[in-house]
Amino acid sequence: MKHIDEIPFERVPQAESTYIKWIFSPKDGVPNFSMRIFKVKAGGKIPEHSHPWEHEILVLKGRGKIRIRGKEYEVEEGDVVYIPPDEPHEYYAYEEILFLCMIPNKGVPPELR
Amino acid sequence: MKHIDEIPFERVPQAESTYIKWIFSPKDGVPNFSMRIFKVKAGGKIPEHSHPWEHEILVLKGRGKIRIRGKEYEVEEGDVVYIPPDEPHEYYAYEEILFLCMIPNKGVPPELR
Repeated sequence: MKHIDEIPFERVPQAESTYIKWIFSPKDGVPNFSMRIFKVKAGGKIPEHSHPWEHEILVLKGRGKIRIRGKEYEVEEGDVVYIPPDEPHEYYAYEEILFLCMIPNKGVPPELR
Repeated sequence: MKHIDEIPFERVPQAESTYIKWIFSPKDGVPNFSMRIFKVKAGGKIPEHSHPWEHEILVLKGRGKIRIRGKEYEVEEGDVVYIPPDEPHEYYAYEEILFLCMIPNKGVPPELR
């Protein structure tokens, strides 16, 4: 057991004012999927990108916008979003946003962890 | 996109004062893992059980106790817990507790969803 605040955020280099913490990854021995939390500060963004793995997202705090293949979703605490594999997506924070972002272990290059 | 409050809780029959909502399951087309939220009301519990799939848990609200193979963890908002496959585990709520509980899709009988 651990508390999420014990785990430090790291900067996400390909994004603006964006940080990630890995809660559970293959390094912790989890066999099938990984749990991460993203923080995007107000005005920050993760530019459009895509990859062959999916996301299951739960917004924990704050307010922002997620764009999936050109369609925009305004999100806030308690919203959940599924991003299928290979769908181009991007994020923008109106105010500091924290969201859980689950990914499978399989198919994700180890250097991304 | 949906809000977790739009999804109704269902009673968990094998437990006391315990409810579940499925946020993402194979019915939604998610390929690898499922997102559920459990609510256990104050004094409620999920008795000890085990199964060949793991849990990745994030406590969203409230306060309770999780017992894993006889070891007890006092949990509250922001705590994360990994329960490996086949580990006997049980839950008890001191006050109403809400927790996210992720499971893999593979190996979980469809009748449990």
